[in-house]
Amino acid sequence: MHPDKLRSIVNAVAKGSMSVDEAMSALKSLPYEDLGFAKLDHHRHLRRGFPEVIFCENKTPHQITAIVSKMVESECNVLATRVSPEAFESVHALHKKATYNPGARTMTIIVRPVKRLTGRVAIITAGTSDIPVAEEAAVTSEMMGCRVRRIYDVGVAGIHRLFDQKDEISKSDSIVVAAGMEGALASVVGGLVECPIIAVPTSVGYGASFRGLAALLGMLNTCSPGVCVVNIDNGFGAGYVASLIARRK
Amino acid sequence: MHPDKLRSIVNAVAKGSMSVDEAMSALKSLPYEDLGFAKLDHHRHLRRGFPEVIFCENKTPHQITAIVSKMVESECNVLATRVSPEAFESVHALHKKATYNPGARTMTIIVRPVKRLTGRVAIITAGTSDIPVAEEAAVTSEMMGCRVRRIYDVGVAGIHRLFDQKDEISKSDSIVVAAGMEGALASVVGGLVECPIIAVPTSVGYGASFRGLAALLGMLNTCSPGVCVVNIDNGFGAGYVASLIARRK
Amino acid sequence: MHPDKLRSIVNAVAKGSMSVDEAMSALKSLPYEDLGFAKLDHHRHLRRGFPEVIFCENKTPHQITAIVSKMVESECNVLATRVSPEAFESVHALHKKATYNPGARTMTIIVRPVKRLTGRVAIITAGTSDIPVAEEAAVTSEMMGCRVRRIYDVGVAGIHRLFDQKDEISKSDSIVVAAGMEGALASVVGGLVECPIIAVPTSVGYGASFRGLAALLGMLNTCSPGVCVVNIDNGFGAGYVASLIARRK
Amino acid sequence: MHPDKLRSIVNAVAKGSMSVDEAMSALKSLPYEDLGFAKLDHHRHLRRGFPEVIFCENKTPHQITAIVSKMVESECNVLATRVSPEAFESVHALHKKATYNPGARTMTIIVRPVKRLTGRVAIITAGTSDIPVAEEAAVTSEMMGCRVRRIYDVGVAGIHRLFDQKDEISKSDSIVVAAGMEGALASVVGGLVECPIIAVPTSVGYGASFRGLAALLGMLNTCSPGVCVVNIDNGFGAGYVASLIARRK
Amino acid sequence: MHPDKLRSIVNAVAKGSMSVDEAMSALKSLPYEDLGFAKLDHHRHLRRGFPEVIFCENKTPHQITAIVSKMVESECNVLATRVSPEAFESVHALHKKATYNPGARTMTIIVRPVKRLTGRVAIITAGTSDIPVAEEAAVTSEMMGCRVRRIYDVGVAGIHRLFDQKDEISKSDSIVVAAGMEGALASVVGGLVECPIIAVPTSVGYGASFRGLAALLGMLNTCSPGVCVVNIDNGFGAGYVASLIARRK
Amino acid sequence: MHPDKLRSIVNAVAKGSMSVDEAMSALKSLPYEDLGFAKLDHHRHLRRGFPEVIFCENKTPHQITAIVSKMVESECNVLATRVSPEAFESVHALHKKATYNPGARTMTIIVRPVKRLTGRVAIITAGTSDIPVAEEAAVTSEMMGCRVRRIYDVGVAGIHRLFDQKDEISKSDSIVVAAGMEGALASVVGGLVECPIIAVPTSVGYGASFRGLAALLGMLNTCSPGVCVVNIDNGFGAGYVASLIARRK
Amino acid sequence: MHPDKLRSIVNAVAKGSMSVDEAMSALKSLPYEDLGFAKLDHHRHLRRGFPEVIFCENKTPHQITAIVSKMVESECNVLATRVSPEAFESVHALHKKATYNPGARTMTIIVRPVKRLTGRVAIITAGTSDIPVAEEAAVTSEMMGCRVRRIYDVGVAGIHRLFDQKDEISKSDSIVVAAGMEGALASVVGGLVECPIIAVPTSVGYGASFRGLAALLGMLNTCSPGVCVVNIDNGFGAGYVASLIARRK
Amino acid sequence: MHPDKLRSIVNAVAKGSMSVDEAMSALKSLPYEDLGFAKLDHHRHLRRGFPEVIFCENKTPHQITAIVSKMVESECNVLATRVSPEAFESVHALHKKATYNPGARTMTIIVRPVKRLTGRVAIITAGTSDIPVAEEAAVTSEMMGCRVRRIYDVGVAGIHRLFDQKDEISKSDSIVVAAGMEGALASVVGGLVECPIIAVPTSVGYGASFRGLAALLGMLNTCSPGVCVVNIDNGFGAGYVASLIARRK
Repeated sequence: MHPDKLRSIVNAVAKGSMSVDEAMSALKSLPYEDLGFAKLDHHRHLRRGFPEVIFCENKTPHQITAIVSKMVESECNVLATRVSPEAFESVHALHKKATYNPGARTMTIIVRPVKRLTGRVAIITAGTSDIPVAEEAAVTSEMMGCRVRRIYDVGVAGIHRLFDQKDEISKSDSIVVAAGMEGALASVVGGLVECPIIAVPTSVGYGASFRGLAALLGMLNTCSPGVCVVNIDNGFGAGYVASLIARRK
Repeated sequence: MHPDKLRSIVNAVAKGSMSVDEAMSALKSLPYEDLGFAKLDHHRHLRRGFPEVIFCENKTPHQITAIVSKMVESECNVLATRVSPEAFESVHALHKKATYNPGARTMTIIVRPVKRLTGRVAIITAGTSDIPVAEEAAVTSEMMGCRVRRIYDVGVAGIHRLFDQKDEISKSDSIVVAAGMEGALASVVGGLVECPIIAVPTSVGYGASFRGLAALLGMLNTCSPGVCVVNIDNGFGAGYVASLIARRK
Repeated sequence: MHPDKLRSIVNAVAKGSMSVDEAMSALKSLPYEDLGFAKLDHHRHLRRGFPEVIFCENKTPHQITAIVSKMVESECNVLATRVSPEAFESVHALHKKATYNPGARTMTIIVRPVKRLTGRVAIITAGTSDIPVAEEAAVTSEMMGCRVRRIYDVGVAGIHRLFDQKDEISKSDSIVVAAGMEGALASVVGGLVECPIIAVPTSVGYGASFRGLAALLGMLNTCSPGVCVVNIDNGFGAGYVASLIARRK
Repeated sequence: MHPDKLRSIVNAVAKGSMSVDEAMSALKSLPYEDLGFAKLDHHRHLRRGFPEVIFCENKTPHQITAIVSKMVESECNVLATRVSPEAFESVHALHKKATYNPGARTMTIIVRPVKRLTGRVAIITAGTSDIPVAEEAAVTSEMMGCRVRRIYDVGVAGIHRLFDQKDEISKSDSIVVAAGMEGALASVVGGLVECPIIAVPTSVGYGASFRGLAALLGMLNTCSPGVCVVNIDNGFGAGYVASLIARRK
Repeated sequence: MHPDKLRSIVNAVAKGSMSVDEAMSALKSLPYEDLGFAKLDHHRHLRRGFPEVIFCENKTPHQITAIVSKMVESECNVLATRVSPEAFESVHALHKKATYNPGARTMTIIVRPVKRLTGRVAIITAGTSDIPVAEEAAVTSEMMGCRVRRIYDVGVAGIHRLFDQKDEISKSDSIVVAAGMEGALASVVGGLVECPIIAVPTSVGYGASFRGLAALLGMLNTCSPGVCVVNIDNGFGAGYVASLIARRK
Repeated sequence: MHPDKLRSIVNAVAKGSMSVDEAMSALKSLPYEDLGFAKLDHHRHLRRGFPEVIFCENKTPHQITAIVSKMVESECNVLATRVSPEAFESVHALHKKATYNPGARTMTIIVRPVKRLTGRVAIITAGTSDIPVAEEAAVTSEMMGCRVRRIYDVGVAGIHRLFDQKDEISKSDSIVVAAGMEGALASVVGGLVECPIIAVPTSVGYGASFRGLAALLGMLNTCSPGVCVVNIDNGFGAGYVASLIARRK
Repeated sequence: MHPDKLRSIVNAVAKGSMSVDEAMSALKSLPYEDLGFAKLDHHRHLRRGFPEVIFCENKTPHQITAIVSKMVESECNVLATRVSPEAFESVHALHKKATYNPGARTMTIIVRPVKRLTGRVAIITAGTSDIPVAEEAAVTSEMMGCRVRRIYDVGVAGIHRLFDQKDEISKSDSIVVAAGMEGALASVVGGLVECPIIAVPTSVGYGASFRGLAALLGMLNTCSPGVCVVNIDNGFGAGYVASLIARRK
Repeated sequence: MHPDKLRSIVNAVAKGSMSVDEAMSALKSLPYEDLGFAKLDHHRHLRRGFPEVIFCENKTPHQITAIVSKMVESECNVLATRVSPEAFESVHALHKKATYNPGARTMTIIVRPVKRLTGRVAIITAGTSDIPVAEEAAVTSEMMGCRVRRIYDVGVAGIHRLFDQKDEISKSDSIVVAAGMEGALASVVGGLVECPIIAVPTSVGYGASFRGLAALLGMLNTCSPGVCVVNIDNGFGAGYVASLIARRK
């Protein structure tokens, strides 16, 4: 439940424009709502500053649609990740405001306008193939009110491309670095800037990359302090942490 | 080189109290200083907001002492990690202000007083055995000017101990969670608070913990957004990122 | 061979209503029956208290149908796991009493009514995506005569959903916890209750979950005593152990 | 806090032989007691039916002694695992009733007599080298009131040794099987009996046993339903689950 | 080149019925024949007692057909493994004597009758799903002249099925044991008999079987001396070694 | 940008046939050119002696075509690897000089004739199945001006096939050895010759080859000095290093 | 119990020189003898053709001495592996005929002369460092009556050293190949001979050899049929299988 | 045998100053010399351009001394790696010209002066802790006649230190990059230069570096073409390949 909606209910009761019974009924799903196959955590926005995000892998279009509808009912903005085109179609049939980013495989519904913050997040990729993961991070950061700067394909094989963007990068409040293969870019960026870096290894590569394991280990073992790591291909998680940091400003 | 020292040199030249040649000589090691076995990165404080930290594993006491002396000469505060008692003795013989935290295995020398900031870092452990890693994080955060709150031994086997500290934890600007075994504490804390969490897996455990691998994988796969991860037993790295975040306030 | 059928044969001989030769013929497949590609363990119900369960992965519909028919002939209830829709159709054509649970991918045939016991098994999942594994456990427990309570989607990212069910959970004789990602739920539940917990890691997750390995390691390294573990996605195995425990009451 | 002690306090208040203030003071550490480096979970006996067990690896003798003293004060029986001879000496100097099992590396202090239950736990090893792990399980089960039957060195290389003990094994309410190398014994025992089996892989072996990994994987992949698994060398965990099951009878 | 064909050429020269030049031409491909994409090792039959076996995975039907034709030309019996139905069709169009075993995925062409030897190979599987690997071993042993006894589905979950076949098994000169999951059957058989056992782990299983790794490690760590191991699913390799042993008799 | 094109621009300015503004415009993309999804490293030919090579996996046909067009515009020869037939068709529609090697999955466009050098690279495979990886190496070496000698299917199971080619191999300036399974061929070749060997493990094999891991580890642990290794299936990388070496002559 | 001793007891009863009671007493420990910490498998010589071998790792000198004494009493020859000098001293104090091979770390006691057989086992190592494992195999084969030929340090980095021994090697009935690092020698030997090869990977190597894992994987993935594998450093297991094969002749 | 010594023998025979019998005796150990525990490969200098190098790990001082003496007798320069101080002392007692590099743990004996070549090898480390591995490479390259340039502690956390050395690095004929942790330096250097790079991962690091595995995977997955890899900590191997390349000039 969006904190603003909660406040308006309490206000209504205070003003007498809503009975206690009506308020109780509206509030009874505050902690969570039980759909049988899911217990929707309506309390999360209050507790953590951002509503529950729907991870769509392994969920049926029917389940996703039901969850989305409950969130919209509670006047929460919706962010869903790993959304297949089929799942999007199923939701879109009911919720025309839903928009789909096919590269990032995200779906968003803006019920209440996102409050624009001053925090700046730079999202950097080593190569072209890392862009889908980066876009998932970018969409997440935008939904959380941050200003996003995308800087793509500046991997260390041609490091002058990165240095050319150094001023731009230095203005960030937090940085997401998405890289596959050996993931060296995170350490190099980490050596240049002052703000925290969220490294997200991607499963881009082949052979002994073992679907992102090489990049993951590389990033965990970085020689540059100030770098922390999220799961392989977890663009959402990287964007989320980066935005938590950036919006503290 | 501490930014304040740099500023004082430039001021002296501006005021005429230092000749250009003297200034050039003082500044010539600005980017880095070559000790043969090490190239000391004097530029790091300017570039990244904190001087180089000395990782002592695999370095001889002689090498460590030489590096410390150069840093003290440049009027930088010294933070060294993974310091053996022998290495500390070697440094302490020359630098009487050096202090040693045997649990954390850190050595610090305060050349210029640390500026106290308002940022608050909570450092939480699952068990008693995780304390050495947590202390490394705590010392790092303190050297970076943060106010540190230690909350130890609140693992999920007795979760009421954690909930009892919830108010205290909620006041933090960032949180370090150190846990071995299955590392579940990071996800649980992650589900409760709004600020970013830096999870540091420890090598505490046995059998299929594989020296911290189980906790590492658990933390990377957390179901709670807002959690990022550093290397196994890397208390320094966790404290560093947590402090970068906390001091933005 | 169902123990009741065995008893009825022996009774018939005792009463003279069946000749010794007839009995010998009926009993000759008691230890096992050789189908060439399979040696059906008819003795298992007597020895272990539950008939052989058919694991259908890598078996052809023809093989499955042949085994089912032999079991029905022996008046055993049939439980089959990992059943494809095709395999079910093949069996159903011959055995109209066969029922299929598409989520759990189980097939059951009730030849003799399952004896209802007083043992209670709670089956808990961290998320919606873990439900198929949980359902395999639930069907198994029901076939073994236990009363099953399903509690789904109470993962640690919103831990109040779990605590809300605590009274319900505490009434159980044994508990199955199915969780993917970091599998932390098993440790948290383990810290709250007195009865044994069977943790079943699921392959839900991505990246460094390595198809359930992260959850498996997490569960094996639990800090909560009273938790034991079965193979990844092995809902059947979890339900089986939980039922063995619950029906001792 | 032992439930009996709790009851006697409440009774004393009811009878007027203890003032409310005295009772409050005695009860104030009920949920947990904070020693700084540890938060002792006094509530565990009430919540889980058995007091906290002290895992001594990575704890100093000083820390262990402090925890033991607090538990004895609360009139809880003490079970400590992975106890070094030095740690035992440190405790024994203060607590003369402490006894040490050097094979199992366990320390126990009986403050209140253990209530003898009717539950029977069989503890079986594949080889002589698995005995220390088995003994840790046996001591745990005995502390939890179970009757323990030790059956050692009956591995599958000479399987007639196992079959010779079959009647004895069949009388158990639960069984612990400790085995290293390939861990096959768990599956074989699992095929013979009706009660649940807790398999504990040991780190006995060499080469590609990878310190117990081979046995762990073997046990997780058992073809015998009714087998569940705990961590490598976790005799305590195995004995704990086995006793939870056996004492339900 | 079949040794008998070699002998007939040499005889012909000795008798004067073949000129030296004709013989040279026939013999010039003796060591190997170069097809560009393959260098066919015609010398192998002489050197190792059995002609080259064609491993068809990753080879095109065209390549397979070309190799088969060259072997038939040299009057060698043909054994090909991992043969797809398409590859078989391609060969069969040219070589009508080719036969296909779809379970084992083997293709054979008998150019010269296989000499029947007295060696006996038993091929045992733990389950029904292991039969394809076992069949690959059986076809190999038969092509090498051994008498094969198939004993399928005698896994340790119902170990009386194995013991029932003990006499039959004991007559073998060598034994192949194919098992997936935990692979315990190899150790159990190893404890019962005198002859060497070739254990072949299969990729049957799920979850932490990691496609046969659990069975492989189990078999390598067997506590029964006399067991050796080949690669996962390598029925051909197991049958080959077993036959080398059996035909020494 | 091809160094010759750069020289011609500079010459034109020197001769007055090109204005400074025209030259500036032609040169402005020298360091790199930003296509949004890619930053094309035009500087690489100058810096590293060979233009950027396009790794096509995970890139869309549209992206590949755009990059190729920019390279052709800059008068660079084009080498692209891991090219799907669809991607080739997309490029070929615009660039009729593009040629495709379906075995190697490489695409090449010769804009300026490759300068033939005297360096000789031998490319050796253990088996027929390793040829696609070897061909990727061969195409790379040819694009870099080396003379290539292909020696295929000389694995150690019939080692006389290798020894027969020893003189030919010894004439090489560098050698690529592509092998899957156990990868032993690299060590054997390494023991015979004087020049450096680039070993490329292939994912050919099954079971415990773990998609090339066995060959990779084997090659890294070679007992023959003079052998170095590239990533699994990385024929391009092997051919590139081998050519760098061979063209030094 | 040695078969000859068994026969002499039966003969004595037949001749009347031993009473039935005396015979029963002598035979009562035939299946196994229970020492508490060990159940000695006296039946193994009858069942498997060779008495139980004592694996001394993790056993105390006291336990080893007790087992040895029981075996000597039963007139069995003793072979013990992984024997520390201390354990040997403990046994030797009681059994003066015990001999120790410090390289192989084996102890042997010849109670009844080993019957010399005609079977020949060649034991080959890649390097000098593999000799201890090879010696364990050699001692085992000698105890089993085989004639052993040691051929050491013929690794593939100087393959002419191997070829020089080819005639000698070809005379073997079975071959043990011990190699660390990449383990390529097994495949090369496998390509040259007709008899079965038992490959034993050694933990010789460093870095990515992972204590013998590289050699193990290499040997399992051999391209030469006729090779099978035992556990890392398991010289005993290799010598045992090789002798089973060689003595069939 | 050094090629010059071989030539002088042949010359002596040609001139008549040495009898054929004397020459035969001198030459009879040409291919290799059998010391029982080692077969010294005297032929290697002729075949591969550099004599056998002695890997001392797992060899006794006695064995090492015997091998060294034979090499000195054959007038070969000696390079030994992984030499313990004890082993050096043992050799030095007999061979006073032996010198020891304690950092690199190498021992060298110059019997014939090393021919100085024009090839230049740069040896670069990421940190101070990587120096021992780098020194092993440097000593190897010097023994092979190359000119060596050491550039230490220029890791990517302060990348300006590397760029400061760029001109120096660019003059190299080949480059060794030794780095632990994430090993990113190899990719960055690879992006800057034209000559081949030999990357050697070091076991420097902790936690998820898994003793060099992270750096190894990072280097194998480099995005910079022109980089190849040797085993973890294999400074010798890296220096050997780099020198083979540099001396081609």
